[in-house]
Amino acid sequence: MSTMEKQSKAIDLSHHLSDYVKSIELSPLKGLQKYFGRADMISFAGGMPSPAYFPFASVSADILDVDAFPLDNLREQASSPLAWLWRLFGTDKGTEHTTRVVVPKAPVAGDDGLNLATALQYGPATGIAKTQKFIHDFTARVHQPAYSDFATLVHAGNTDGWSRVVKALCNPGDTIITEDWTYPSAVANATPVGVNFLPVPMDGQGMRPDSLRKLLAEWDETKGRRPHLMYTVPVGQNPTGATMGKKRKQEIYDLCVEYDVIICEDDPYYFLQLGDYVSKPARASEPTFDPTHELAQWIVTLEPSYLRVDYQGRVIRLETFSKTVAPGTRLGWFTCNSRFAERLERIGETTTQSPCGLGQVLVMKLLETWSFDGYVRWLQGIRTQYKMRRDFFIDVLADEFDLQLGTHAQGIWAGAPVYTAYSKPTGGYFMREKSASKALFSFVPPSSGMFLWIRLHFDAHSAFVRGTDDAESLEMQFWTQLAEGGVLTAPGHFFAALKDAELPGVASEGHLRMAFSMSETADARRGLLIFAKTIREFFKV
Amino acid sequence: MSTMEKQSKAIDLSHHLSDYVKSIELSPLKGLQKYFGRADMISFAGGMPSPAYFPFASVSADILDVDAFPLDNLREQASSPLAWLWRLFGTDKGTEHTTRVVVPKAPVAGDDGLNLATALQYGPATGIAKTQKFIHDFTARVHQPAYSDFATLVHAGNTDGWSRVVKALCNPGDTIITEDWTYPSAVANATPVGVNFLPVPMDGQGMRPDSLRKLLAEWDETKGRRPHLMYTVPVGQNPTGATMGKKRKQEIYDLCVEYDVIICEDDPYYFLQLGDYVSKPARASEPTFDPTHELAQWIVTLEPSYLRVDYQGRVIRLETFSKTVAPGTRLGWFTCNSRFAERLERIGETTTQSPCGLGQVLVMKLLETWSFDGYVRWLQGIRTQYKMRRDFFIDVLADEFDLQLGTHAQGIWAGAPVYTAYSKPTGGYFMREKSASKALFSFVPPSSGMFLWIRLHFDAHSAFVRGTDDAESLEMQFWTQLAEGGVLTAPGHFFAALKDAELPGVASEGHLRMAFSMSETADARRGLLIFAKTIREFFKV
Repeated sequence: MSTMEKQSKAIDLSHHLSDYVKSIELSPLKGLQKYFGRADMISFAGGMPSPAYFPFASVSADILDVDAFPLDNLREQASSPLAWLWRLFGTDKGTEHTTRVVVPKAPVAGDDGLNLATALQYGPATGIAKTQKFIHDFTARVHQPAYSDFATLVHAGNTDGWSRVVKALCNPGDTIITEDWTYPSAVANATPVGVNFLPVPMDGQGMRPDSLRKLLAEWDETKGRRPHLMYTVPVGQNPTGATMGKKRKQEIYDLCVEYDVIICEDDPYYFLQLGDYVSKPARASEPTFDPTHELAQWIVTLEPSYLRVDYQGRVIRLETFSKTVAPGTRLGWFTCNSRFAERLERIGETTTQSPCGLGQVLVMKLLETWSFDGYVRWLQGIRTQYKMRRDFFIDVLADEFDLQLGTHAQGIWAGAPVYTAYSKPTGGYFMREKSASKALFSFVPPSSGMFLWIRLHFDAHSAFVRGTDDAESLEMQFWTQLAEGGVLTAPGHFFAALKDAELPGVASEGHLRMAFSMSETADARRGLLIFAKTIREFFKV
Repeated sequence: MSTMEKQSKAIDLSHHLSDYVKSIELSPLKGLQKYFGRADMISFAGGMPSPAYFPFASVSADILDVDAFPLDNLREQASSPLAWLWRLFGTDKGTEHTTRVVVPKAPVAGDDGLNLATALQYGPATGIAKTQKFIHDFTARVHQPAYSDFATLVHAGNTDGWSRVVKALCNPGDTIITEDWTYPSAVANATPVGVNFLPVPMDGQGMRPDSLRKLLAEWDETKGRRPHLMYTVPVGQNPTGATMGKKRKQEIYDLCVEYDVIICEDDPYYFLQLGDYVSKPARASEPTFDPTHELAQWIVTLEPSYLRVDYQGRVIRLETFSKTVAPGTRLGWFTCNSRFAERLERIGETTTQSPCGLGQVLVMKLLETWSFDGYVRWLQGIRTQYKMRRDFFIDVLADEFDLQLGTHAQGIWAGAPVYTAYSKPTGGYFMREKSASKALFSFVPPSSGMFLWIRLHFDAHSAFVRGTDDAESLEMQFWTQLAEGGVLTAPGHFFAALKDAELPGVASEGHLRMAFSMSETADARRGLLIFAKTIREFFKV
């Protein structure tokens, strides 16, 4: 990136703001702010209780060490695959090293509001100073936006963040660009506002630039305003698990400049970039993690955010602590141009106000204690754990099925390694022939995130009749049979950006999204064995 | 209340739902819920991280005792008016008694989700089970709704609550009924949706039923749909501090039944019902608080919520922990009919999801430790503290000005005790005559809440010219002079339901809202002395 780009400032994009957000008034007291900074001021202005009556004299937490999870797969696997379960349920307390952190009620000079008298009080929708500083510094350091005057603003998690983006940028009748398959809540959130979705075909890296250009260039203005907002999950795409590299992001971004589109990058899985799946036998000879590659080195290996190419300020990035600390923190942030941030703050003032103060102080105390380098080490540990879980999931499928590796020239997996599962040969020669002929399901090992997206080949099913639209029905039949067997998955049709879309090949296919993130090893194996048994029964192989 | 009323069920009021809220889809997984309850289920369905990776092994808090604040004014005042300040800033740690409470990560049977593995995970928008149970039990026991099948649902504070009510019930062009003077955020929140406000004249108890009937009966349907939603703060009315009794609530409610209006009762100050102001000399001979009147007895003396008369389920009550625990908890709840609750939950799912889990567990652990009776005792202590603060505020004004008690036959203070402040006689006989002739400001001691609403008599000001509309300008001139002197207040015009309304007498009056809740004694006195000095200078008396 050139120095010139780095020093660029956001351009004026305020013509994208919705009628709704343009009419939110400034917080009444904002006009009088020049008096607020004065230390000697006595305030009878706000409707505030006295902090003397906050019943919490202090809050504290026992926090894990930054290196609670190793960076070396093999070492962890050798020691005990159930260590985390024992830690969780307290039967192995001796091995879990924690540090006690305390947040007092009383303010201390220089604590940036990291005290209960401040954090439990009403505060600005921007959060306490400590939070403001952390999110801005972290964004500058990790994502390195391509323009200098970017703004950061807290929200109550990416779902809250996206709902504010829709409010801020969409009028009824507008159309939002998204991937063919996408996060259902993003659709459920925007549809009631009277907004439509325009799905763009994908390949192994996510949204396709050629398809996007065609859709934008051929947009029929008589059907409404050309789409001016994109919703995308570029890393650990939900549900497909695809990861979009910088080159692809640059292509999409350039198109968005050409057609004046705002990109909302929902990026909860950013630090869960897992890399390629290597089969179990091959992993045994992999080098263990090189500790000299820790910290900054690792950050550099991650595919960059859209912010890295955003020299105009047309990206709104949604970031969250949900997958790196915990979802229950309900804490995340926007990175965007300052004009958008100001409007998104106004929406915050008239809805949730500041994120929960108890959540803010505990998360910020954790991060302060860990330091930046420590948090990066923690993120690496988490990422390694999820990589192990992904690998374990696929290892079990490899044990249960005959997995054959191939590539697709087109479709959502174009360019990615596709595994197709056949029933494993059992019995004599004749049986092997018969079973091997049926491709039961296929998948691409997710390169990021938490999900395995499985395509079910219903054309191998005896009840399938080509040309009829019974795919969803077979999908739900299989889903139900699996649920009856004791395993819950997410049915594929939930993730279709358009419910009645004519996706190519959909009539012969069903899908399931299976999260490998949540289950401990024993449950994961048990669940996958049930899946294997159910699929063999369902396909009668 | 008759048994028949108690056993009544909510009527169908779903014709009030907005187009927006009717089109929010059910959470996709809802249809599959029958499998979720099974204990033996393995779930690959949700996009959930593993609780093993939540970095908090436990959180804990040092909480105050339920009797941290006495119920006896005189005793506290005799001991030390600065005790709370010392407690806050830690110089008097020895006297503050606290108890350590701990929330572990691991679930325990019967803990109702009061553990970090549950509370830090994604969860339903209804919150953890412990929160659900508390808010329902508390509502049933304290507010005793007049119908049996009421529902309760958490939100992230009353501002979030009201924003969801507007989304759920208002289409663009609708009109919301409110008081002449109201909470500015309630207006700022709804206006961008394209909603109008219809202010109803008030008296000393708040909204007037005769005025409401007239406005509803004479509604011009050509100007749009007749108002079907009311926003009201019936206790500690913001900004006037009025308290609405049960008889008045019954009258308003009956009108709302007649005209099919939904009442949104925003009631953050419910437990801060302070009673009448008694002058300092008279208070000295008041009986001290009778400890036998603690707990249930005290609850019975409070003016009841609208829920107590709501036999149809047309009240949406907004309740919050902001004034009873702390605003930074960002935790409160709706009480309403189950159909509305279901829609309000859907809005929650697509915005904030569940309130912050760290906030929920700490508040719920506090309340569990205190027990119901303990929490009521805490509320009484808080209420007594705010009563002392209100009394202290007015005592200082009584010291600084010549306060004369009277009543008004009409206007927002009709029926209430009105104090009018004259400059205190100083110097010789001639001077006393001159000063005594000017009524500088007047107020009604607030019977609930946190605010003193002051009317400034600009007709006594030399710059005032009758018939011109310079009242706001004089109001802001005075506000600014006060701010320059070091005291921040909230200017009256912020609270006008309609910014350009022709409120009777407004041309000769300005207003200020002064919170007595926030400042410790020394600051309150210092601020009020600056106020007194500034008003004397401003009015040249």
